[in-house]
Amino acid sequence: MRWIRYTFNQMTHYGIVKGDKVQQVSGDPFGGFNEESIFRDLHEVKIEIPVVPRTFYCAGLNYSEHVIESAKKQGIEPALPLKADIGYRANNALIAHMENVIIPRDATEKIHYEGELVVVIGKKAKHLTHENALSCVLGYTIGNDVSERTWQRSDRTFWRSKNADTFKPMGPWIDTDFVPDDAVTTVKVNGVVKTVYKTNSMIFDVPTFLVEMTKYLTLWPGDVVWMGTDGTSPDLISGDEVDIEISGLGHLQNKFIKEL
Amino acid sequence: MRWIRYTFNQMTHYGIVKGDKVQQVSGDPFGGFNEESIFRDLHEVKIEIPVVPRTFYCAGLNYSEHVIESAKKQGIEPALPLKADIGYRANNALIAHMENVIIPRDATEKIHYEGELVVVIGKKAKHLTHENALSCVLGYTIGNDVSERTWQRSDRTFWRSKNADTFKPMGPWIDTDFVPDDAVTTVKVNGVVKTVYKTNSMIFDVPTFLVEMTKYLTLWPGDVVWMGTDGTSPDLISGDEVDIEISGLGHLQNKFIKEL
Repeated sequence: MRWIRYTFNQMTHYGIVKGDKVQQVSGDPFGGFNEESIFRDLHEVKIEIPVVPRTFYCAGLNYSEHVIESAKKQGIEPALPLKADIGYRANNALIAHMENVIIPRDATEKIHYEGELVVVIGKKAKHLTHENALSCVLGYTIGNDVSERTWQRSDRTFWRSKNADTFKPMGPWIDTDFVPDDAVTTVKVNGVVKTVYKTNSMIFDVPTFLVEMTKYLTLWPGDVVWMGTDGTSPDLISGDEVDIEISGLGHLQNKFIKEL
Repeated sequence: MRWIRYTFNQMTHYGIVKGDKVQQVSGDPFGGFNEESIFRDLHEVKIEIPVVPRTFYCAGLNYSEHVIESAKKQGIEPALPLKADIGYRANNALIAHMENVIIPRDATEKIHYEGELVVVIGKKAKHLTHENALSCVLGYTIGNDVSERTWQRSDRTFWRSKNADTFKPMGPWIDTDFVPDDAVTTVKVNGVVKTVYKTNSMIFDVPTFLVEMTKYLTLWPGDVVWMGTDGTSPDLISGDEVDIEISGLGHLQNKFIKEL
């Protein structure tokens, strides 16, 4: 089942994707819903981010090749994370599938994508075990953890390097049946494949993160956990179109435009 | 004017504090409201956090004595921040005035308070100037940036050192008339004064942060910006009651209890 959040006639609803249609619901997948007898064509609605997160978690470093390649570019020794320490991103930066990433006027040329699997939490959870960890998960979506690498190195925090407005595309939908095991993440720029990796070749997998996190914090419906990325990105320029596909889950597509 | 968020008879409302009463409103101070003719005694309502933030910003290091004292304790050179780089905290950790901070079972003895001025954003804003920066501010409240210092040093992020459940008391209300200039922040533990500092002796003041932040990000109604703290905290133990007073603004009181 695929949950989509969309706007039609200036009203925003949740809906269920059925082929090339979306069936409107009242309510939402977190608090309860009723199916309505209103169907729209997917191409006639404006797709919104699938959830406004209550807390926006992000694993950051979670794939070995990404850590090793990043270190090589900086001429330093790679430091693989030894523990599943979760990090954060910010809601101001979220944009939907097909919206434009705006590269700030004074950004350097080091604008990179990071295609990521995103876990969407559906139920309140604390003190999860490896056996029951996935019971709190509603489903999965796709994220692009856009980064300005020069600011990422120079600033004390990731506030503008990773959380400038529009730097966090997420969508297009929440798939409740997706299983990460055999999935492949493929990132194309202007139709040309640039990065391919096994989605589940994480250093710490989804259950491990959820178990560690819920030792100290409560997960709430609508929280999201971005799981990190592998490989590296070329420098992106104005006009580039980035397509992140996770097989079995969908495509997240966004154009990058330099601010005038 | 003081905005409070409270629960009475299992319903949560915004209200306006009038003496020792609260006047119920429909709506909220962000999207619009109507005053109702229902008054409650302040002591008969359950005070809630004054806002569930859309994005939870936090300055972190922003007072020189705090940076110098912290460095001294670690035996390292103090590094004062050179730029107003904003950071983040997480909504799961928020609790209200008079709720208990739960010290995790396996936390070390290094549990510290940080009494902070909190800016509550009331209007959408981008590209603010020093002249108009405060025009987006609805008012101010008080925060306690509770920290477990051992985890703060050992972990790759601040996820459990600063964002464990209950580690972010905020309240009791939003004061729309408060002016930081002459205010004093006083922190008492069990009635004994432990920290006193001029609230506005920040390295980067509120307008400076808002101007810097909005070069790259949009502030939204309901966002909060915690402004950092000065001085240091003694190690807190189970049963300690911490009272953070900002003169002219109010008191934020919370008891610390060790998890069993």
